[in-house]
Amino acid sequence: MSPKKRAYSLGLDFGTNSVRALIVDTATGKEISTAVVNYPSGEAGILLDPKDPNLARQNPADYVESMTKAIRQAVNKARKAQKGFTADQIIGIGVDTTGSTPLPVDKNGLPLAFHDEFKKNLNAQAWLWKDHTAFAEAQEITELAAKEHPEYLVKCGGVYSSEWFFSKILHCLRVDPKVFEAAYTWVECVDFIPALITGTLAPDKIKRSRCAAGHKAMFNEEWGGLPAKEFLSQLDPKLGELRDRLYDKTYTSDQVAGYLTKSWAKAFGLKPRIPVAVGAFDAHLGAVGAGVAPGKFVKIIGTSTCDICVWPNDKPLADIPGLCGIVDGSVLPGYFGLEAGQSAVGDIFNWFVNHIQPGGPRKGSHEELTKKAATLLPGESGLLALDWNNGNRTILVDQRLAGLLLGQTLHTRPEEIYLALIESTAFGALTIIKRFQEYGVEINEVINCGGIAEKNPLVMQIYADVFGLEMKIARSSQTCALGAAMAGAVVAGKAAGGYDRFEEAQAAMCGVKPNTFKPRPEYHQVYQELYRLYRELHDAFGTKQWSGNLYHVMKDLLNIRDRQLEKARQLSQSKRKKK
Amino acid sequence: MSPKKRAYSLGLDFGTNSVRALIVDTATGKEISTAVVNYPSGEAGILLDPKDPNLARQNPADYVESMTKAIRQAVNKARKAQKGFTADQIIGIGVDTTGSTPLPVDKNGLPLAFHDEFKKNLNAQAWLWKDHTAFAEAQEITELAAKEHPEYLVKCGGVYSSEWFFSKILHCLRVDPKVFEAAYTWVECVDFIPALITGTLAPDKIKRSRCAAGHKAMFNEEWGGLPAKEFLSQLDPKLGELRDRLYDKTYTSDQVAGYLTKSWAKAFGLKPRIPVAVGAFDAHLGAVGAGVAPGKFVKIIGTSTCDICVWPNDKPLADIPGLCGIVDGSVLPGYFGLEAGQSAVGDIFNWFVNHIQPGGPRKGSHEELTKKAATLLPGESGLLALDWNNGNRTILVDQRLAGLLLGQTLHTRPEEIYLALIESTAFGALTIIKRFQEYGVEINEVINCGGIAEKNPLVMQIYADVFGLEMKIARSSQTCALGAAMAGAVVAGKAAGGYDRFEEAQAAMCGVKPNTFKPRPEYHQVYQELYRLYRELHDAFGTKQWSGNLYHVMKDLLNIRDRQLEKARQLSQSKRKKK
Repeated sequence: MSPKKRAYSLGLDFGTNSVRALIVDTATGKEISTAVVNYPSGEAGILLDPKDPNLARQNPADYVESMTKAIRQAVNKARKAQKGFTADQIIGIGVDTTGSTPLPVDKNGLPLAFHDEFKKNLNAQAWLWKDHTAFAEAQEITELAAKEHPEYLVKCGGVYSSEWFFSKILHCLRVDPKVFEAAYTWVECVDFIPALITGTLAPDKIKRSRCAAGHKAMFNEEWGGLPAKEFLSQLDPKLGELRDRLYDKTYTSDQVAGYLTKSWAKAFGLKPRIPVAVGAFDAHLGAVGAGVAPGKFVKIIGTSTCDICVWPNDKPLADIPGLCGIVDGSVLPGYFGLEAGQSAVGDIFNWFVNHIQPGGPRKGSHEELTKKAATLLPGESGLLALDWNNGNRTILVDQRLAGLLLGQTLHTRPEEIYLALIESTAFGALTIIKRFQEYGVEINEVINCGGIAEKNPLVMQIYADVFGLEMKIARSSQTCALGAAMAGAVVAGKAAGGYDRFEEAQAAMCGVKPNTFKPRPEYHQVYQELYRLYRELHDAFGTKQWSGNLYHVMKDLLNIRDRQLEKARQLSQSKRKKK
Repeated sequence: MSPKKRAYSLGLDFGTNSVRALIVDTATGKEISTAVVNYPSGEAGILLDPKDPNLARQNPADYVESMTKAIRQAVNKARKAQKGFTADQIIGIGVDTTGSTPLPVDKNGLPLAFHDEFKKNLNAQAWLWKDHTAFAEAQEITELAAKEHPEYLVKCGGVYSSEWFFSKILHCLRVDPKVFEAAYTWVECVDFIPALITGTLAPDKIKRSRCAAGHKAMFNEEWGGLPAKEFLSQLDPKLGELRDRLYDKTYTSDQVAGYLTKSWAKAFGLKPRIPVAVGAFDAHLGAVGAGVAPGKFVKIIGTSTCDICVWPNDKPLADIPGLCGIVDGSVLPGYFGLEAGQSAVGDIFNWFVNHIQPGGPRKGSHEELTKKAATLLPGESGLLALDWNNGNRTILVDQRLAGLLLGQTLHTRPEEIYLALIESTAFGALTIIKRFQEYGVEINEVINCGGIAEKNPLVMQIYADVFGLEMKIARSSQTCALGAAMAGAVVAGKAAGGYDRFEEAQAAMCGVKPNTFKPRPEYHQVYQELYRLYRELHDAFGTKQWSGNLYHVMKDLLNIRDRQLEKARQLSQSKRKKK
């Protein structure tokens, strides 16, 4: 052990159902201890309305209660896990949350939900990212922006979502004017937490997250910050008035939101005055924790995916159509943070396994299907699928799309469909990567994180084969919390045992697993053929511009199939001979 | 009981695995008795070659042995079933078989397979309809005909099949010249049986079936019968020479092939000199037994379908592109017999149930899926499928096609896919019906036969809804054997207790079941919308001519789905209110 005193950082990761506290050694990135505490309210932490399936809210008191427990547990665990550890060694705190998850607050910055009057009012709670009650308002905002300020949409994928800040606020104004009137302003959960624990809740003190503002509230310094008052007033004069009580300035996560107050320090069992970083969304700090950098593309693969990369903000960058967001500093200060994603990945595999259950629940498990699918050559099944069972987030930005499976014969087996579904998500991912590349963003390697990346080597291998790129997996399985902890180390600064810049924190604190997945050239070649066909279907069903003929598609697939079947036969013969 | 002596007819139906004998009351069509005897050789009557999956032959001795047993059993059963029945009351015999199932015969018309020298030679046996060894020769014939005699192809769907007469003979010539040389001529199974039992096997006596010649051997009086000698000689000079030993004349099934010989009469337990009709293929006499007539379209629905209709041969009829065959007299004398078909129908449902097994073997049974699918409104699932898992026989005549399923979401359930597959076969069938109608062939009602028509009312109801036509089901569940028996009644003639014309026999001997399926107007309307989308996909993937854009397809499907889901919701509410 080094005689020098060790330094640790605390990452707080507010998820959809729970909060995680992670204590990390700032010198090595070693994760000393972690604790996860579920939110106590509602169903798995989500407040629902049986009459409205679109509604999803959270009780802000849950954040506070669960965070406190999680930090105390993590500290206790760290003491046991790491000899000599004391809470005093924690030098910085970082926060990531879901988003857009805005909540109405009073003049002091306290949630309306903390007032007795509004305690039970769902509209006074935090509007969780996946709340879709504001679908009509989202359309209204999109239409107005398309007409009057198309530039607002360019940076957020061309469509303003029902999940986002202004849609939700406008909806609240429409359905519950009492709550709207009572709210002095609205804050994102990601702004609320750092402000709360550093005593900077007051509207003139709270530091707003660049990440949240840029990706969800159309904030951009190009047009002076938030959308113009006159624009918001057209949606509703009261929304225009609210703009004066929102913000003009935003901050990146290398900035200090404030310093841990005495009372919160006591509640957490930490020392006071620890610097707390400005918050950012989970995917964005997750990418930081995975090692995102120019040329390093991060894929967070779960039920859906979030793809993040960065590009120096002093290099020219065109508007890239179809991306979810392009925001200066949303991931790393000094870089554009570029966000894309697929509406469903793991969800498609789960659909096939849970809803279709081919062969029954046992035979049709992920494990069994994966095992069988792994023996197939690319193209051997003759199948090709589109990964649109839940629409297409990037590059088409279109929810009104659906899945497609093509090439079935009377002999098609479940594992062949399963493989085609995996391949379809790989083709969808490649389409995103190509879009970045077409607009000059370099991508040299892919770092994956999330459950599927860790658990299903077949998926990773096929992604490598399809992309023609080496696939790496982030060393940490909690990159969001790790990224938050890295933000904590950065705001602590080098002198305190942290770092002055994110790049330095990344160099020391994160990495990839030793096992990587290299593309198999023969597979890659076939996948290039299949991708051309995928892309044709993608454009034929997904774009208005495409025009052509698809007569050759089934024939090409059958020809590739026949060739690959012959190859499979030869391979099995030569195997048999060897035996 | 009428004091008048009853008359009966015997129908012999030679299938792929067995032969059926059916004794029918000529006055009423009442089926007195039936007996089925399996062929003893090979696997379920089929001689296979483990080294060549394309090979499928039959031992002609099986036909004889099984036929003899079947007739004797049927006669015995008839005696028990019908008081007063005697074998002497059988006034006529008709024969239908599979086809094209040609066999090489010697100078006396006896199968080479009956000679010791060739007994074990697979090439000397009957080449069963589903033998595909001659795929290269089929292509050769198609290419030569396309170049030199395109008219030959026009009447048989544009492609000469590996399953057909000349492909098989040419393949035999190539792979087994000894058999080819030893054969004086080749006969179809459908010609062989009537000739055998009437002692007219000699090449100058045998009466060849118009049905077999026209549909499988490019026979047409327009060009003087079989393809020109010079054409066949180009394929191989020896094939040209064979033409002189084939035939120039063909006969419809109202013609007498000959009269039952004494020795066969004894073997069968029948009286001698019974007239035996010229044979025809199973589907064609099956259509007769189902009641085919101008305007009455017969669908024989099994693993695949065969669609048959007729059109007066004195009315103008254009060549209809994409049909399997247009042959004067192949179904009813005096009418063009028009044949079309779908490469897979029941096979597609079986594929989903047996290969995909959604939910496991029990939950994913035809019964369970049908029960659940029956509760869905058209379009409610948002799914649309193409029925091409086994290629497309009519109207595209293209084996190099494959299945397609479109519109899956993360909630798509197995019964929705099952319904989409049923609908896809209905849309495929409608495409055939429309093709007939476009070329002036009237279709006013549809008579269905085959296992699916009898067993699955949901399929019939959906077909009615999709076609907008009443669906009827043939009264007999063995329409092929019944049609053969009707041919027997016709060659017996009115004076003997039979009929002079098929139309009279049909009026008396066949009919439809009382339960029919009427189109539901609201369903039909939605299916018309869905059919337009099906047709677009059909043309986009199936034709070279199509050019366009499919951007609207998924959106239209989702819009129809949303509308129908809303309707389903209203229906279930109003049901609940009633309760």
